[in-house]
Parts: sequence; C-alpha cells; structure tokens
Amino acid sequence: MTPRPSGRAPDELRQVRIERGFTRHAEGSVLVSFGETRVLCTASVENRVPPFLRGKNEGWVTAEYGMLPRATNTRNSREAASGKQGGRTVEIQRLIGRSLRACIDRGALGERTVTLDCDVLQADGGTRTAAITGAYVALVDAMDWLRRRGEISRDPVFGAVAAVSVGVFGGVPVLDLDYAEDAKCDTDMNVVMNDGGGFIELQGTAEGHAFRRDELDALLALASKGVTELFAAQRAALGR
Amino acid sequence: MTPRPSGRAPDELRQVRIERGFTRHAEGSVLVSFGETRVLCTASVENRVPPFLRGKNEGWVTAEYGMLPRATNTRNSREAASGKQGGRTVEIQRLIGRSLRACIDRGALGERTVTLDCDVLQADGGTRTAAITGAYVALVDAMDWLRRRGEISRDPVFGAVAAVSVGVFGGVPVLDLDYAEDAKCDTDMNVVMNDGGGFIELQGTAEGHAFRRDELDALLALASKGVTELFAAQRAALGR
Amino acid sequence: MTPRPSGRAPDELRQVRIERGFTRHAEGSVLVSFGETRVLCTASVENRVPPFLRGKNEGWVTAEYGMLPRATNTRNSREAASGKQGGRTVEIQRLIGRSLRACIDRGALGERTVTLDCDVLQADGGTRTAAITGAYVALVDAMDWLRRRGEISRDPVFGAVAAVSVGVFGGVPVLDLDYAEDAKCDTDMNVVMNDGGGFIELQGTAEGHAFRRDELDALLALASKGVTELFAAQRAALGR
Amino acid sequence: MTPRPSGRAPDELRQVRIERGFTRHAEGSVLVSFGETRVLCTASVENRVPPFLRGKNEGWVTAEYGMLPRATNTRNSREAASGKQGGRTVEIQRLIGRSLRACIDRGALGERTVTLDCDVLQADGGTRTAAITGAYVALVDAMDWLRRRGEISRDPVFGAVAAVSVGVFGGVPVLDLDYAEDAKCDTDMNVVMNDGGGFIELQGTAEGHAFRRDELDALLALASKGVTELFAAQRAALGR
Amino acid sequence: MTPRPSGRAPDELRQVRIERGFTRHAEGSVLVSFGETRVLCTASVENRVPPFLRGKNEGWVTAEYGMLPRATNTRNSREAASGKQGGRTVEIQRLIGRSLRACIDRGALGERTVTLDCDVLQADGGTRTAAITGAYVALVDAMDWLRRRGEISRDPVFGAVAAVSVGVFGGVPVLDLDYAEDAKCDTDMNVVMNDGGGFIELQGTAEGHAFRRDELDALLALASKGVTELFAAQRAALGR
Amino acid sequence: MTPRPSGRAPDELRQVRIERGFTRHAEGSVLVSFGETRVLCTASVENRVPPFLRGKNEGWVTAEYGMLPRATNTRNSREAASGKQGGRTVEIQRLIGRSLRACIDRGALGERTVTLDCDVLQADGGTRTAAITGAYVALVDAMDWLRRRGEISRDPVFGAVAAVSVGVFGGVPVLDLDYAEDAKCDTDMNVVMNDGGGFIELQGTAEGHAFRRDELDALLALASKGVTELFAAQRAALGR
Repeated sequence: MTPRPSGRAPDELRQVRIERGFTRHAEGSVLVSFGETRVLCTASVENRVPPFLRGKNEGWVTAEYGMLPRATNTRNSREAASGKQGGRTVEIQRLIGRSLRACIDRGALGERTVTLDCDVLQADGGTRTAAITGAYVALVDAMDWLRRRGEISRDPVFGAVAAVSVGVFGGVPVLDLDYAEDAKCDTDMNVVMNDGGGFIELQGTAEGHAFRRDELDALLALASKGVTELFAAQRAALGR
Repeated sequence: MTPRPSGRAPDELRQVRIERGFTRHAEGSVLVSFGETRVLCTASVENRVPPFLRGKNEGWVTAEYGMLPRATNTRNSREAASGKQGGRTVEIQRLIGRSLRACIDRGALGERTVTLDCDVLQADGGTRTAAITGAYVALVDAMDWLRRRGEISRDPVFGAVAAVSVGVFGGVPVLDLDYAEDAKCDTDMNVVMNDGGGFIELQGTAEGHAFRRDELDALLALASKGVTELFAAQRAALGR
Repeated sequence: MTPRPSGRAPDELRQVRIERGFTRHAEGSVLVSFGETRVLCTASVENRVPPFLRGKNEGWVTAEYGMLPRATNTRNSREAASGKQGGRTVEIQRLIGRSLRACIDRGALGERTVTLDCDVLQADGGTRTAAITGAYVALVDAMDWLRRRGEISRDPVFGAVAAVSVGVFGGVPVLDLDYAEDAKCDTDMNVVMNDGGGFIELQGTAEGHAFRRDELDALLALASKGVTELFAAQRAALGR
Repeated sequence: MTPRPSGRAPDELRQVRIERGFTRHAEGSVLVSFGETRVLCTASVENRVPPFLRGKNEGWVTAEYGMLPRATNTRNSREAASGKQGGRTVEIQRLIGRSLRACIDRGALGERTVTLDCDVLQADGGTRTAAITGAYVALVDAMDWLRRRGEISRDPVFGAVAAVSVGVFGGVPVLDLDYAEDAKCDTDMNVVMNDGGGFIELQGTAEGHAFRRDELDALLALASKGVTELFAAQRAALGR
Repeated sequence: MTPRPSGRAPDELRQVRIERGFTRHAEGSVLVSFGETRVLCTASVENRVPPFLRGKNEGWVTAEYGMLPRATNTRNSREAASGKQGGRTVEIQRLIGRSLRACIDRGALGERTVTLDCDVLQADGGTRTAAITGAYVALVDAMDWLRRRGEISRDPVFGAVAAVSVGVFGGVPVLDLDYAEDAKCDTDMNVVMNDGGGFIELQGTAEGHAFRRDELDALLALASKGVTELFAAQRAALGR
Repeated sequence: MTPRPSGRAPDELRQVRIERGFTRHAEGSVLVSFGETRVLCTASVENRVPPFLRGKNEGWVTAEYGMLPRATNTRNSREAASGKQGGRTVEIQRLIGRSLRACIDRGALGERTVTLDCDVLQADGGTRTAAITGAYVALVDAMDWLRRRGEISRDPVFGAVAAVSVGVFGGVPVLDLDYAEDAKCDTDMNVVMNDGGGFIELQGTAEGHAFRRDELDALLALASKGVTELFAAQRAALGR
C-alpha cells in the first residue's frame, strides 16, 4: 500500500477553510480552501429570470466556473482570450448549478436569478468539490441579504449541500484527492450530497481501472464521512 | 405505483437494434436504436495523434456528439449555425470519449486517432447511452478493418463497454428511461459498465429528489441487468 | 469517349429513392437517395417569421445544410466544433432556400416559417440536388400537415421543384454526376427547375475548361430530361 | 414595356471606368466603376501556398470580398465587428476566386498565392461583376510586376475574364442591372466569360418568376455583347 | 540631427486634403488625406440609441475603424475573415468615438445614433489622427443634413475637433509622423484637441525611450501648432 | 470646492499594499491593493517567443487583463462565456504590456515570454494603474526566479515602472481616483512613469470637459508625486 503523498490517512480531508465576506460587492462572497486549492465563490442576485421561467413566479440558480490562467502549475490559456470555454469548464459549471439548485425552493426565491461564480485562484485538485461546498455558503449569505432587506419572507434554502472527491489510489480508497493523487489515480468520483444523507450528484470516472461494486461501496462510505465534516465546517462558518 | 407510459416492466429494456454497415465510407458505421431513439455511430481512423501524444507510440480515441435539428419534438437550432456546441453536447461527447477509451489498449492502437461520431437522427431519451453502446460496435469494426489490412497485429479492444440509464419514476426504480419518463423523473443515472462487471462511468443526477442509498443500490442492480442484455445484443450484432 | 465509371448511359440518372416519414417528429421527413448519396430532409413549421416579415401576413421558407463528419471518404471536421459553417455549406443552404421559395405562395403560408434541414448521411456527389429534390417532398408533407389540422385553407405550394447536376465528362455531356465523375470533371452545372419547364437556378462552374455555347445547350437539355424523371419520382412518392 | 430607370437602352452597359494604380502598396490596384458602383480591387502576391498545394510547384489565386458599412443606402453592420462574414459575402468571394483561377496557369505562377481583395466603396448593383472585371486587371498588373522583377519567365495569365449581370426587367431582357432594377426584378443572372466566348460561371436566380428557355437565350446573348465591351475596356486600361 | 525622411521641417504637417461627398449614400462622406495616408470617413444617422440611453432624450456618437487588407505595405489578414477585430483596431475606434463625442451636445442630437466609419484605403502613418480630423467634417455634414430636413432645430456640434501625432525622431520633436518615422521612433503621442485649445485625448507611448518632461512640453507645443492648421483645413473644406 | 468622497487630501494616495507570493505556482505572484481595488498579478515564464521574434535571441513581455464577474457593484457578464474580450479589456491589457516592456532588456531575457496576468478580484477605480504597479513586482520576482536557477546571467529589468491615475474632480486636480470620483469626473488621465522621472504612457481622456494646459501641468505634477510613493512601496515590498 502506497502512502498518500501528503501523509494523510485514507479517510482524512485536507484542511478546510471557509472565509465569508472575502470581497465586498457580491451578496455572498466566500473564499473556500481545501488545502492548497482556493476558490472564490460569489453569489449575485438579479431581478430577472431566464426566458423559460418568465411569468412563472419561480427563480433560478445557475453557476459559472473559471480558473485564473496561472492557478495551475503551468499557465493555461485564458478562455476569454481564446474565445470559448473549454469542455471541462462547461462540464463543471453545469455540475455546480445542478447541485445548488437541489437545495433551493424556487418558488420562495421568486423571480430572481442567483449566479454563483466560482473562480479558482489556486488549484491543487478538487476544485469542483471545493466550489460546490463554498458556493453553498455564498448562496446562504445571499439569501440572508434578501431576507434582511425584506424582499423575501421565507428562506429558499432547505438543507445543506456539500461535495467531496473520492478515489482509489495505490489500491486503497481515499478521501479528498489532491493533485498529486489525482494525476496518478484513474478511478475517481465526485460526490455531491445533502445533509439528509441523500445523493444529489454522483460522477464516477474510471478511464484506466474500472471499479468494482465493493470499491464503489467503500468510496461512497468515505464520501459520506467527508461531507459530514464539510457540513460541520459550513455550519461553523455560518455561525450556526 | 404509476405504470410506465410504454407499458414496460420496471426492469425491461426497450427494443434494441444494432445495424452494422449503415453507411459505407467509415471504417465502422452502426445505426443503434433503443426503441425510438436512433443514433448513427461512425468510427473514423486517422494516422495522427493529438499533440500531447506525439512520439509516444500510443493512440487516442475521442468522440463527438451531435443531434440533427429536428431529431426532437420541436426544432433545436443547429449548433454549426449558432457557432458553438452547447453545454449538454460538450458534456455528452466527453462522456462517450472517456467510456470508449476504457476498453482500448492505446499502445496496441499505435499512433492513430479513432474519432467516434455519434449523431442522433431521432431522439426519445437515452441518446448518450445508445451512443456509447453503438459506438463500441463501430469501434470493434474499425479495429477489425485495421487488422484485416495488416496495420495492427493485436486487437486494441479488450472487453466490451455498454451503457444504460436508470431512474426513479413514480417511486419505482426503472430501467432505460424513454423521453416520457425522463421528462417527469428528476432522479436518473447513466451507468457505463464493462463486461467484467466493472463500473466505468456513473453519472447520477437528482435535481429534484435526492436519492437514498437503498435507491442507489436498486438502480445499480437494474443497470447491471440492462448492460448484460446490451452486451448480448452487441455480441449478436458482431456475430460472436 | 471515356465510359462513365458507373457504366451508366450519358443521359441516365442514378437510382432515385424517396422515402417519406423517415423520422417521426418533423412535420415532413424524407430520406432521399440519388444512388449512394443519401440526404435526410426534414421540414419544420414554426409560428414565427424573421424580423423583416413581421406584420406582413407572409411566411418564410429557409434551409440549412449539413454533412455528417463521416458522410465522405475521409472525415471532415464537424462544423459545430470548429465554430462556423464553411463557405461551401453557406453557399448550398442559400441555394436550397431560394429554390424552395420559388414554389411557395408566402401569403397562403401565413405568418409561419418552414425550415428545411438537409443533412447528408452519405455523400457520393450531387448532395445539393438530392437535397432540393427531397426537400420539396418534405415541404409538401408539412403543408399537408398544416391543412389537415385546419391551420391553412389553401395549399401554399404551387407546382414542383427538382434539381439535377450535369457536366462534361471525358468530352461528353452527362447527367447526374457521381463523385467519381465530379472529381475529374471541371465543368459542371446544377440546374433547378420547376415542372412548368422554367429555370429557377442555374449554377454553372468551369474552373478548368470554359464551356462553349453548344455544350451549354446540350447540358440544359440533359437537365430538362433529368428533372422530368425526378418530378415523376416525387409524384410517385407522394402517391399522386 | 417599362423604360429602364436610368433611361439606358436594354443592351446598354453603364459607363465603365477602370483606374489602375489607385493605391500604391499593392502589386496591382484598380478602382473599377460600373456607373455608381465602385469597387477597389487589389492583387497581393505572397510567397506561400495553401497547405493542399505545398511542394507541387503550383500557385493559387483566391479572393476576398467586403463592402464598407456605408457603401449602401442604409448602413450595414461591419462584418469584422459582428465576427463573421455573411452568407452573401462568402458566396461572392468564392465566385470571384473561381472566376479568376480560370485564366491562370498555376504552374507558371509557381509557389505563390495571389489574393484579390475586392472592397466595395459604393454600391449600386452589380458589385460582383464589377469586382471580377476589375480584379482581372489588378491580376494582370501583379503578374507584370513579377515579370519585371524577373521572378517568373512566362505570363501565367491566359486570355481575359470579365463578368456582367443580365435580367428580365418589366418583361424585357436587359444588360448590367443597377440597384433600382435589381430590387424590382426577380430574375437575374451573373455571367462570367472569357474572351474566347467560353462560359466560366453562370449564376441565374429566379425567386419570383422562373425564366423560360427563350428568355435564357436572350439573356446569354446580352451577356455576350456586354462582356465584349468589357474586354475592350480592360484592354484600353492596360494600354493594349 | 537626422533629417526627416520626407525632407519636411520638424514642425511641418504633410499635405492635408479633405474631400467632402466622396461617396453618395452616407449623410456625411469625407476622404481625408494626410500625405499618402487616405481614410474614408462616413457618418451614418440612425433613429435608435443603444440600450443604456433609451428613453433619455439623448443621442450617441460611436465609431468603427477598419483597414483594407492591402492598405499597407504587406497584406494584413481581413478582420471579417479571421472573425474578430484586433486589439489595435478596438483601441483606435474607441479613441475616435470618445474624441468626437467631446464636441456633441447629445441632447440636441435627440434619440439618434451617428456612426462614424473610418476605413483606411491607404496607410502611411497617422491613420487615427487623420480619421478623427476627417470624421469631424463628416459629422458636421451629417448634422447639416438633419437640419436641412428639419429634424433638429439647433446644431448639436459645438466647436471643432482635430488630431495629430507628434514624436521624437532622431532626438528632435517632430510633427505628424509618417510611416518611415513612426517605424523608427519609439516615442510618439497622439493629441486630440478642440479649437478652444483644450485637450480631449492624449495618448503618449514610449516603449523604448521614456520621454522627459521638457520633451513632453515641446511635443504638446508642436501638436498645438499642428491642430491649428488642421482646424483651418476643416473650415476651408466646409466653406466657413 | 467639493471634498473628496473618501475625505482624502487632493494629493493623497489610497492605502497601497503589495503582497508577494499570494499564490504558489507562478514565478511571480502579487496581490496589489490600492484601497479597495485588489488585483492579482502573476508573472509566468515560458520558453517560447511569438513568431515575429523567433531566432532573434530576444524575449517578450505581454499582459492579459480580466475582471471577475462580481468584482464590481453589479455583475458583469463573464468574457469567457460571451466569447470575446470587450474593448475596454483589450485596451487595458495592451497598455499593461507596453508599460512593462519599457523596463525590460529583451536581449537579457533571452528567448522567453513572460505573461503578466492581471485579474481584478475587487474593483474600486484605478484597476489598470494598480495592475501595472503590481505587475512590476511580479515581473521582478520572476526574473529573480530565473536568476536563482542560473538560467540568465544578468537582470533583464532596468529601473522601475509604476502608474497612477489623476483627474479633475469638483474643479480640483486630485490623485488616485476611486470609483466614486471616477464616475463623476469626466477628465482623467492614467500616467505610467519610470523611476528616472520619464513618462512611459500618458492616457488622458476628457469626454466632458476638455482640460486646459495649466490643468494638464497640475495633473502631471500630482502623478509624479504619486508614482514616487508607489516606487517606495514597490521597493519596500521587494525588501530593497
């Protein structure tokens, strides 16, 4: 059994920090860190909905994801300069959007759109799971802002949503892969859960070694443990 | 318990047809039907590899996905005309590519790229799972073509890959959702497996109702049953 | 005199098949084959008109053309992926649109747009002429659909439209060029006619050998003969 | 019989002017006027060929077409700003390129590309025919420039190429349509010929009234007369 | 001290010509020449305003800039073909727009947009300053056109605007750089002024040799002298 | 005389902070703050040069600028999603690139490209001047990194470069405008200087009130004072 490059135990998360109010303009602004992965998540509220929801008294939650060109070890070209978002970006921002819509009562939100911008300042694996976990806190803050201004009467957020990655590294199921693990391990899964123990999104990928059912069970158990700790970190950050 | 709109049993696939040699130019060309969903899958072999593989004596398998504008009930705008592929398209073609790379020995393929074009002629739910299942057969045919021409000595394909969707409809886990089910059911999962019982890709989404662990187990069991039948259909089509 | 690669007589069309109802969602859906050239033509009716026609009680007919990446002998890049339609595509879809508008009473159509999507599944020369010939049948079916639903009172289609290519191959004027001829012959012409013997579009191109007036006359006579047979095939397909 | 808005006889060209050396940097630079239509045609020689011609000892001639935003009665949006060339532009520049390639010996040109930029400063109908007629003169000048510098030994240009539009206006076949005629007349044809009486391109369009064979013959006769006069104007401009 | 390549005195403008009515469709159309630099400036009036001005009873003035591909010594690629405007183009057209807005009473203009299209037919340095100087005259002509039609009651143009470049060449501050100077001199400044002696835009660039305060003063004095002559040329062209 | 919204004296900078090593992957990484404006500047070194410099033994310095969608008071659309960089972005990144190239000996840099990515995390006016001031420090750090690795022998950076904005607010020339001032003041200038007192870039804009020569002199004096303090802050951050 190969030890983890970071020396962590197989079921050990990296240090998680959730810093609210990181920037001042957004209705919610959170800098979330999973170890050396740092993602700035802002929640912006606008009084409009996409065309397919007009006149339905419902709101919408959507997400956009970006990575600063030098968030990574070698510079990536800037998507704004190359004129399009890459496939990976598109895939991730759709995942974040679906995940956060799973804890929102769109009727209670009213005809508003919340855009969750998740921008990676520094990447070390797990940017999408950090983004979901942080974006939840930014979303809660934005809903509080609406409530304090008297624009909504009941909280559109129900429950909590968090995400973590799991994978098989050196033959052992491990929790919260960092880049050194991610690059070597071709079986990994991103798991998005709510605090009722329900699964919201499961995205398992095994380009190299297909995972067996017993590995899958072990990974799901690890993920469950991980998100439980993330829910605690979210509550602590929110002072709840 | 709501009966399925199609009258199928919960664990019943739609009629699956796999028609080889549907068009004549491609090295592999398969029309796959899952009920009314029809996808044309072609495999094209080219003697080049992407820049990141040059000089490594390895090949590459990639996929592109498209839907004819009127494959669906109302016309969608043509992506070539609007100037970009939508997020859903990008997500699906990346999934197909990863899935098929999971059964290819890239060293045995040599410095070649196989492009799997999956074009939906008619859509009724499950286009991505049909595409993966059909693209596998097109890929096998393309590898046979290479072998018959003496360009490769051993078969780069190991095992088989197939995919099916599962979901909770009217409270009941069901197999191989059609459009009528898909539109009403907000918990569904696409499962890609190999014929050794291993999971290659799991993509579960629960925008509405998060699924519990026991539902997940039931869905995985249904998927296992479904792909077993799909492997049989692939073998039958290939005359094996 | 070089014989035609296909062995056809100079004034002989390839086998023409027109298969209605090829897909199920579109108001008109036709698979047209000119020999090995196969084009799926769908007609989609929408209750809107382009901005320049708003409020004028007139409809519009437009066309889009595409070729599946592996419809041809070597794979072409997917236009949706490269982000723009090529010059040839644009030229062809404009030709199809103009040709079909020539048989439509736009007042009788009312404030509706019919989009004719012509997607080449397999190419062997003459895709644009097959597309026009098949799109006519899809258009007629879509108009029948409108009439059966009582949305229009009189038929907006007057007469018939069909198209064929002609060219000088090995010094001899020939009808309905296939790819083997097209690639070697640098004088060819696409001729769109109506069933009253009128010319709707003439597009003659002679990059290599400019054609003389007597050759032009011979080509026009061949085209006349060819479209007469195509009109018969259209009527047969429509059961008229 | 409706008189022509300009008072011209049916077979009368507008005043044609061909001004060489209009700008100073290009190897050939011609301002051509057909009445109020003014097109600047420049020929640029570069020592490179497109990928498909590399190593074949042949050259290439290509064309690009543009219209200044306010060349027309109302302002058109700038294609560079909207990020793509429109369908009409693409169609026209392909026509110009094919037409001029018909009078070039690509072997004699050697591994060079000549780009013919045709930019409409002022439009009053017939911009593509003026462009072809003027681009020919710019091409001849560029070939002379190459010869004077001793870079080529024999003239790659053989014969001459010119173009004119014809159409049926008010029931009468007329030559060289201006905008007032073009806007009202829905049968028109652009004819590109060489000075041996051969047809290089024929593009006839009849959205409204399909033209009969006898009309076609009358139009072709008019076009023949028109290009004969244009060849004389080209020779006069070239001092031949 | 190096003499100027053109033999001009350090404070000497090139020959300036301002030709009104160069094309016929635009409300204002001016061909401006600063020596061999020739720019066609048209002013187009439209009865609409950008979204941010709707309902405010104010107009807008904006500019677009382009260069014909062969306006320069070697051919530049056509921006419409490459699908985007380059950075230099964007920078220049924003400068022209701001400069001309500085002499417009937007309330007096009413809910109209004036677009100033500045297209370089031939370039020899100073295209942006020639464009601003010429666009002013086109703008005045367009406002006169509005006034003559009775659409506006008072003149929206107040004062005059002109521009010139200055730079340090061979150690000497010089006025109105041509291309031969511009290419060798890495300190230059574009100065836009009004006829009250006020500065509207200053854009000084010193990639190579940073300029000292005393050089800056000398350059500003030269610019002042230059625009004074340009205002005289504008007045002469306008017959004032 | 209107007091400044921030209560600052007319010649008072906002609090300036320069934090090195803000992220870990880039060769230089600086978070610069001018009051509430915060810009992350990274310097990335790559062993390649743009095509126009190949084989010349010279390096290149270029810049890209971006603003996170919610860096501002209301959300701006993400440029990567809309598919192009706006005019303001292009203008700013070109300014940053030119400014930093003014302090680099490109021969000493060798065949390398340094890309300065300036991403605004929070905006309150003066983002481009903060970016230039911070990018200088990131550039110095990247050059140190090259030197420590022995890749270059002498320092390619000569002198220092910093930038500040000045403008006329409420009739008074003021230094370092924040957003509240910038929005109300239509005469402002960005001044880039080196530490020898030379001007590198001057960009003065006066859409509303053209500035007089005496105002210009006062603004330049303020800018000189401001950059002197910025040079001190850069030195302090660099421990020099």
